[in-house]
Amino acid sequence: MHKVAIAGYATTKFRRKSETSLFEIACEPCRNILAEYEILKKEIDAVLFSSCSVEQYSSSIISEMLGLSPKISHRIDNLCNSGTNAIACAFSYIASGLCDSALVVGAEKIDTPGRRLTWDITRGEYGLPVHWAGLFAKAHMRKYGTTEEQMAMVSVRNHLKAAKNPDALFGEPITYDEVLNSRQIVPPIKLLDCSSLCTGSSAILLVSDKKARKISENPIWIRGIGQQTNCASFSKVANDLTSIHAAKQASADAYRMAATDPLSIDVVELHDAFTILEILAYEDLHFAKKGEGGKFVNQEEISINPRGGILGCGHPIGATGVAQVAEIAMQLDGNAGLRQVKGCKTGLVHNLAAAGTSATVLILGIDQ
Amino acid sequence: MHKVAIAGYATTKFRRKSETSLFEIACEPCRNILAEYEILKKEIDAVLFSSCSVEQYSSSIISEMLGLSPKISHRIDNLCNSGTNAIACAFSYIASGLCDSALVVGAEKIDTPGRRLTWDITRGEYGLPVHWAGLFAKAHMRKYGTTEEQMAMVSVRNHLKAAKNPDALFGEPITYDEVLNSRQIVPPIKLLDCSSLCTGSSAILLVSDKKARKISENPIWIRGIGQQTNCASFSKVANDLTSIHAAKQASADAYRMAATDPLSIDVVELHDAFTILEILAYEDLHFAKKGEGGKFVNQEEISINPRGGILGCGHPIGATGVAQVAEIAMQLDGNAGLRQVKGCKTGLVHNLAAAGTSATVLILGIDQ
Repeated sequence: MHKVAIAGYATTKFRRKSETSLFEIACEPCRNILAEYEILKKEIDAVLFSSCSVEQYSSSIISEMLGLSPKISHRIDNLCNSGTNAIACAFSYIASGLCDSALVVGAEKIDTPGRRLTWDITRGEYGLPVHWAGLFAKAHMRKYGTTEEQMAMVSVRNHLKAAKNPDALFGEPITYDEVLNSRQIVPPIKLLDCSSLCTGSSAILLVSDKKARKISENPIWIRGIGQQTNCASFSKVANDLTSIHAAKQASADAYRMAATDPLSIDVVELHDAFTILEILAYEDLHFAKKGEGGKFVNQEEISINPRGGILGCGHPIGATGVAQVAEIAMQLDGNAGLRQVKGCKTGLVHNLAAAGTSATVLILGIDQ
Repeated sequence: MHKVAIAGYATTKFRRKSETSLFEIACEPCRNILAEYEILKKEIDAVLFSSCSVEQYSSSIISEMLGLSPKISHRIDNLCNSGTNAIACAFSYIASGLCDSALVVGAEKIDTPGRRLTWDITRGEYGLPVHWAGLFAKAHMRKYGTTEEQMAMVSVRNHLKAAKNPDALFGEPITYDEVLNSRQIVPPIKLLDCSSLCTGSSAILLVSDKKARKISENPIWIRGIGQQTNCASFSKVANDLTSIHAAKQASADAYRMAATDPLSIDVVELHDAFTILEILAYEDLHFAKKGEGGKFVNQEEISINPRGGILGCGHPIGATGVAQVAEIAMQLDGNAGLRQVKGCKTGLVHNLAAAGTSATVLILGIDQ
């Protein structure tokens, strides 16, 4: 297997509405990468587009708009997991030797059809993601004594971090009381326990070992990939609603492939579309012991969601996984400005789709 | 790079309408593969869905319906090229070592949104694929003296072959006069020079070298892959409308990777959505000299489109590329019944999308 590195990354300002076309939004971060890293356009072998939009032949359109003529070009979609799936796909194109460089771009508009989960009739009348978040929260509270206050603290902390991120949807801190007093949506989930769909885009340039060493003295490697799809129906997610089983499997595989462990991780982007998901992820990724995720909220050992997570940054569905990887790459590159995690060498990305029916975990690292 | 083989293939009966859901249609050929080849369900590492539909998290849904829990699962779309893109993607997941087996399924319903090419304003009012087919035909006729009669013969021959294929949309031969006298659509393209959109599905199971040798004494290997995306706009396809330049590039790369040449190819599936495209493909794949594609129509040396091509079988967009590969796999496996090409060892698949803006060429072979 050829080694694969991240040679460029860029994320746009996440915003609510935009009159700009999805394709223009997608091109924004790509143009930044192509300009900043001086990659020759003819060197881009693959363009993969991650989005839940209904546009047709979108990867060809984006390629043309960027002046690229890649060998490989197609769209990938899998709801919130689309971006991380696309990065794993680009990894495999390079690792297999089929190509030497791949541009992955995720973009979404706020009115994306990716919000809909109409197929899963096992959800009954509870079709919105917040309904299953409520079930996970209730199960964890009942079994482990996790509290609404601990969940509120996740939101407070992630909004505080987002306030240092000029690209985040939410630019102001929120208070603990504001979260706890925000409108009940599906008890115990309140409005400020939930992330917001938004418009945005992010791009990553992946390259082969050989190309990486030409571009950078200290390349950012993709060292581990774990992916798992357990089902599509919420009723089949698990008998036990206190874990996301797909994420546990994906993280075990990623740690094994990277030959590392949770203690070696310095910085993490995890999927916090609802506050309870961050608490579950602490446990599923083995940062906290089972049942102790609630108490882990206030820890300071590992830097988690330094950009502000999905709660603070907003959730442009097909772009989210790409933006998570862009954040970890920027951190490892020592290029994260006000929110730089000092001395980080190894980072982890955790992403989910559709009630945790599928999950991806990626481990990135620079040489010591 | 790990070697990759085709361990299973199945295609459904192509039909016009169907009341069945897209997901049920997609599951049909997969169930045949899982039953026939006795692959354990837990051994399927990836499920890739090729379709232009607007359904969300479709690969997870299909996985659940089949009782599969793959590591990797997402949809791939790129108009007519989707299926061949998905197979190249599955190839890379296995060749890179990320997984050992991948089920690729393409499915489409006749009313797919993949028919629309609304973005490309360079087509002016000529938004339908038949308009660009007309331009290619006129250019080739003017420069090389290709005739409407030669194009008609492509349709006659492919419909004759489809009559031996129980899964084809068209089950009856058509006559030369019927084609020439059929309604003019965009001169010189007549109704029977055109393929028909339809409903259908096809699936391929790809496996690693190690797994292939356990299953088969004579595995069908994917030996060469070439892909090229030149643009999205018809106006940028080429200055020269007598070739599909993306296909020329893709075929050169595929021949090189497979270390073979056109003279070694025994059986071909090529993209004949319009009769003129078959003639261009003869030249772009180097079976005929430039300009002599029209005269090549009556040749008998290489077996071309034995299942009846897209003209005879119909065109379920996201399924077409997968069905082309399934046909070549079946031929190399010696399992093609009435339409078996005797003694074939090496086969080629040629697929295009959106006015030849992108192309894929795959070369398959069995050991001699």
